Amino acid sequence: MNTYGDMFRVTVFGESHGKAVGAVVDGCPANLPLSKEDIQKELNKRRPGQSIFTTPRKEEDEVEILSGLFEGKTTGSPICALVYNKHMRPKDYEKLKDTPRPGHADLTYKLKYKNYDYRGGGRASGRVTVGHVIGGAIAKKLLQYTYNIKILAYTIKVGKIEGDFSYYKKPEIFENQESLKSLESKIWENPLRCPSSNYKEMEEYVLKAMEEKDSVGGVVEIVALNVPIGVGNPIFNKLNGELARGLMSINAVKGVEIGVGFKCSELYGSEMNDEMYFDDEKNIRFRSNNCGGTLGGISCGTPIVLRIAVKPTPSIGKKQRTINLKSFENTEIEIEGRHDPIIVPRIVPIAEAMVAVTLADLMIKGGFIHPCCL
Amino acid sequence: MNTYGDMFRVTVFGESHGKAVGAVVDGCPANLPLSKEDIQKELNKRRPGQSIFTTPRKEEDEVEILSGLFEGKTTGSPICALVYNKHMRPKDYEKLKDTPRPGHADLTYKLKYKNYDYRGGGRASGRVTVGHVIGGAIAKKLLQYTYNIKILAYTIKVGKIEGDFSYYKKPEIFENQESLKSLESKIWENPLRCPSSNYKEMEEYVLKAMEEKDSVGGVVEIVALNVPIGVGNPIFNKLNGELARGLMSINAVKGVEIGVGFKCSELYGSEMNDEMYFDDEKNIRFRSNNCGGTLGGISCGTPIVLRIAVKPTPSIGKKQRTINLKSFENTEIEIEGRHDPIIVPRIVPIAEAMVAVTLADLMIKGGFIHPCCL
Amino acid sequence: MNTYGDMFRVTVFGESHGKAVGAVVDGCPANLPLSKEDIQKELNKRRPGQSIFTTPRKEEDEVEILSGLFEGKTTGSPICALVYNKHMRPKDYEKLKDTPRPGHADLTYKLKYKNYDYRGGGRASGRVTVGHVIGGAIAKKLLQYTYNIKILAYTIKVGKIEGDFSYYKKPEIFENQESLKSLESKIWENPLRCPSSNYKEMEEYVLKAMEEKDSVGGVVEIVALNVPIGVGNPIFNKLNGELARGLMSINAVKGVEIGVGFKCSELYGSEMNDEMYFDDEKNIRFRSNNCGGTLGGISCGTPIVLRIAVKPTPSIGKKQRTINLKSFENTEIEIEGRHDPIIVPRIVPIAEAMVAVTLADLMIKGGFIHPCCL
Amino acid sequence: MNTYGDMFRVTVFGESHGKAVGAVVDGCPANLPLSKEDIQKELNKRRPGQSIFTTPRKEEDEVEILSGLFEGKTTGSPICALVYNKHMRPKDYEKLKDTPRPGHADLTYKLKYKNYDYRGGGRASGRVTVGHVIGGAIAKKLLQYTYNIKILAYTIKVGKIEGDFSYYKKPEIFENQESLKSLESKIWENPLRCPSSNYKEMEEYVLKAMEEKDSVGGVVEIVALNVPIGVGNPIFNKLNGELARGLMSINAVKGVEIGVGFKCSELYGSEMNDEMYFDDEKNIRFRSNNCGGTLGGISCGTPIVLRIAVKPTPSIGKKQRTINLKSFENTEIEIEGRHDPIIVPRIVPIAEAMVAVTLADLMIKGGFIHPCCL
Repeated sequence: MNTYGDMFRVTVFGESHGKAVGAVVDGCPANLPLSKEDIQKELNKRRPGQSIFTTPRKEEDEVEILSGLFEGKTTGSPICALVYNKHMRPKDYEKLKDTPRPGHADLTYKLKYKNYDYRGGGRASGRVTVGHVIGGAIAKKLLQYTYNIKILAYTIKVGKIEGDFSYYKKPEIFENQESLKSLESKIWENPLRCPSSNYKEMEEYVLKAMEEKDSVGGVVEIVALNVPIGVGNPIFNKLNGELARGLMSINAVKGVEIGVGFKCSELYGSEMNDEMYFDDEKNIRFRSNNCGGTLGGISCGTPIVLRIAVKPTPSIGKKQRTINLKSFENTEIEIEGRHDPIIVPRIVPIAEAMVAVTLADLMIKGGFIHPCCL
Repeated sequence: MNTYGDMFRVTVFGESHGKAVGAVVDGCPANLPLSKEDIQKELNKRRPGQSIFTTPRKEEDEVEILSGLFEGKTTGSPICALVYNKHMRPKDYEKLKDTPRPGHADLTYKLKYKNYDYRGGGRASGRVTVGHVIGGAIAKKLLQYTYNIKILAYTIKVGKIEGDFSYYKKPEIFENQESLKSLESKIWENPLRCPSSNYKEMEEYVLKAMEEKDSVGGVVEIVALNVPIGVGNPIFNKLNGELARGLMSINAVKGVEIGVGFKCSELYGSEMNDEMYFDDEKNIRFRSNNCGGTLGGISCGTPIVLRIAVKPTPSIGKKQRTINLKSFENTEIEIEGRHDPIIVPRIVPIAEAMVAVTLADLMIKGGFIHPCCL
Repeated sequence: MNTYGDMFRVTVFGESHGKAVGAVVDGCPANLPLSKEDIQKELNKRRPGQSIFTTPRKEEDEVEILSGLFEGKTTGSPICALVYNKHMRPKDYEKLKDTPRPGHADLTYKLKYKNYDYRGGGRASGRVTVGHVIGGAIAKKLLQYTYNIKILAYTIKVGKIEGDFSYYKKPEIFENQESLKSLESKIWENPLRCPSSNYKEMEEYVLKAMEEKDSVGGVVEIVALNVPIGVGNPIFNKLNGELARGLMSINAVKGVEIGVGFKCSELYGSEMNDEMYFDDEKNIRFRSNNCGGTLGGISCGTPIVLRIAVKPTPSIGKKQRTINLKSFENTEIEIEGRHDPIIVPRIVPIAEAMVAVTLADLMIKGGFIHPCCL
Repeated sequence: MNTYGDMFRVTVFGESHGKAVGAVVDGCPANLPLSKEDIQKELNKRRPGQSIFTTPRKEEDEVEILSGLFEGKTTGSPICALVYNKHMRPKDYEKLKDTPRPGHADLTYKLKYKNYDYRGGGRASGRVTVGHVIGGAIAKKLLQYTYNIKILAYTIKVGKIEGDFSYYKKPEIFENQESLKSLESKIWENPLRCPSSNYKEMEEYVLKAMEEKDSVGGVVEIVALNVPIGVGNPIFNKLNGELARGLMSINAVKGVEIGVGFKCSELYGSEMNDEMYFDDEKNIRFRSNNCGGTLGGISCGTPIVLRIAVKPTPSIGKKQRTINLKSFENTEIEIEGRHDPIIVPRIVPIAEAMVAVTLADLMIKGGFIHPCCL
């Protein structure tokens, strides 16, 4: 369905070529200071048209808040916020009507729902994630306001080029306010959202694919700082399981890992286990963070570290073989127009949003944040 | 919480050293033929004491069905099934009371709930997964009965040793009844649940770790065959997202990927996209299965292929540094007794169970299986 | 929270004096013919300003559909529909800021959420039910399209004046298309939504209360026709229980009964039990409908008959004693402006909506209506 | 389905003639002192065989707790508790196989699920409410431990005989510890659970019906004391709506009202509205409690007062007309054996249980009780 979360609930709506896209965010406690700018700021991060790598479709995405605020604060009532669709390219979508694009949801949507708004990808369009980001913006504000939680996503790999920055390469960056700020600047200044110093290599890699009318994938890392101990549930609603679901609900994500992730399979227990100690103030500390912030599905106080695998944009100009669902014939397709040769940078703010919403929901359910009133 | 699923719901209960462990399975439609043996068969797969690699604790795990069946069939009423705990080792668990084991849930449980049944890992014990497997056994029966769906999990990597068998290495094995049957035999005959021919190497790898009082991890692959087109939802309850959550709810799993998974980041769009064609009978076919069975969160008719990263057993005999929560002192621990040097083979049936339960729930919600009556 | 239903889900948003009120309806299967008029028609029924008994606030309530439709049919995607708030009376709501009105939600909202949009009743305003009616309109269309289900609500009692029409007084009216149509006309032509012939008496009763700056309550009956056998669940999600919850979620409703309701306490078993028989076509029939359409929480094929008790409008001009939450002093209040002396007629369409949404949700969950596609 | 509640969740299982009936209670926070006796005490209240009015089936109903407790306290893990079915009467249930009893769920169950365990009413049997009462016992303990909440149900009407005691007749009884205790004694000593002084009249009324092989209904009132201000939600999950659903999920209940209930329809606004004042300690007080404890769906601090209509036991010895589902013939039935001529007293403890579970769930969700740990 189109609702995410149980107590902090984001219901998204809208199609790429409908009147509007947006979300109703229910369960945000009353008294959170919230402004239009808090949401707009996050929406701006996902806006395309910001570099040569993104589609030139100019999405102004000016958010309008229809409900739930009073005198600059939340009231505990549902917050409906949306963005009207303005600049729809007068593209000939008729072509796509019966010819599903390989790697796309065209086929499965069409077979599942029969009446399918194929224009611009309809409900499967990246544009729908405006709703995710609206939910994420409110969740981020709530988490920051209550626990000073900070969520940061960035690209660590593009195609075969691995960046020289990631949490496990430089964990100390995340322990210092200043270095963290500088990291954040690097992320949002770079069109690939990659704070690594070898980002030029990555750009060339993408440009080369563009020339061949092809696309590339990558890996995004997400870090959440200051999450208190105890978030998440022991059996089925584990923190890691919920985060995996949230991140996998982003189209194009084909894998999720936490902590050292798949590398854990190659470690010995004695290497993997994070040993504990008391520091001088008798705070519980860990000598490593291989677990990535959760033990037994519950946060243990260390940074939460996740990585997601993002597949190459399925829309490519290169000729591909496909089928015609009307004529029942095998055919070929060359997708026209400008398409992002890499979707990774646009996934970055959505990944932050999904982690924020997941944490907000679990922290309300877990008694960390009061469900009605701050 | 302790319930998984919305319409096919598994509620698990019990602790390692309590009276019983089990599950209430609600939402299984009436008229499914079901016997005690259907469940017992699956429970036997997770039973330890079957090889040198598993703990000698003899768990007979004889299941008792308390409700929900009438004249050999389900009635649509909740099925409560459980296993009484019989052979509890008279071990001195007092030692663990205040000394959380590194890599374990001891610490987070204790801090979250305060009153913690630490005996034998309590609620975090692998023993609790008896409930998962009960739910999975019923889900498997339902999926097989209605759509002839087959779910198969097996080990493809142990420590640094990669097996020579996996779905992408030999996809043709899954297209043939006979080769499939032979694959299944190989899996359950092998103590590591590994059908690769180089399994001896793996065994040696584990034995060496055992000698050093250490443990190793691995990778499990899960394949689901015959899932019809259309299972899963477009936005938040994507098939892949739900499966990721289900699999991540198994303790020890640190990563989940679908299809080519993390490898997708290195592919070009033209390589990643699975092209479609009509076969001679005008059935829709794909020229590859890089997506692993889902497009836009919805099943597309190809085998669903997942892999999970399993960390090394945290309980090791080697000396580790930890803390004493009572004395607030740093201390050391050497975990006594016999522990599985590798948890991977015991994860295999649980992974099957979680995939089965997730599919059953999504297929009932999606209108593929009638919610009340077959 | 602000979502109703599990599989047919209505999420309402908006405040009386905010920008808009509306709903996101999720889970309506694809391919249902649906137009703006289908929704507008239902909204018109709840519109005030239609008689001397209702507030003169002119609510045009023109609905705008933002998503979920394509070529005149639903697509299976969420339908966001809303009404912009235009005619807000420039009333001095400041007075109400600290002085909760007796019988109103002012006090409990204020204490629960602290930041309370008190203008015009805010979230507790009847205006919020625009969202309910939007959801109900879509549910009604779905029920009518799939099962020809008809839902009819009407007033049967106003203050102490009991009408001469109700289901149990003239059940035969509901068995005939023509008499049903005539009944419907009577309901919507009458300002009290009362098809009884003694409605004049009721009007005088209300007018007299108006003169005294007082208000009156009443009873509404709701009948649902053509609901198939088997809707509802045996234990906790009984059809009657879900309907009771839905109807009780209308502000002002203080009681719900099904079938003969409270009168059942005075009957003998032999009077209460509805005997069954086969008619000439071997259809199962009942000799009476005391149960009001459900047996053991499951629909049995007879008309579903419910009644709700609606309290008098709490906003009255008469002087009442109350408190000032700022000065902590006891005080008095005379609520200014025009208020409906009776809320009953405005409850009628909302009651229909809640029954429709409840049935739609249960029928999708119960396998009666396909969850994805008609 | 068979689960009630979102965060305090009761999943019931079992059939009248299966192996056991019971419940899994999930979401009870850790550290609540709880013993077997706490549950047994409540189960004893519903036990039949205590008077001439109840079936002589001797249900010992000794509860067994299988999980969730450690050292006399809850651990936050699910509590599975059950009662084994011992004394099943060797009755010839075959007769009922194809002949549904009027007023019973036999018909609707059979048509909905096809495979129906008809023995002793199966899943529709009153015996299944053992699970409700287990959940209620734990909820009551939690509510009492955290807020000193007291829930009391009792009979106020039997057939046409109205008792001389009810909340609105003597509200002062509920304001005094001693009179409350004496009230409670009266309730549980009386076989009809009726503290009215004219209970003899009621008994005679029932005996007369028994002689005619008939049955009678009645009305039960439920009062919850000390519920804090703010419980319940503004729109759909109103306190009154949730309570109505919970109470309507008891078989035999045909109506629910809160406060003055249906009588509200006859009152003027000026009579109905409960005026507020500050007492000498500046506590908010109400001059009446016509609302029955909720305003706008949220508790306002006054006692919560509910009444339910209980229909006469459908199982009667008198000859009734019915159908044979196998032969498709109209037939007659005289239900053999001893049946309760009145079910009202057995509903009393179940009504308490449903109110307790509903409050516990809403209070955890509303942030009144910590969801994990007391």
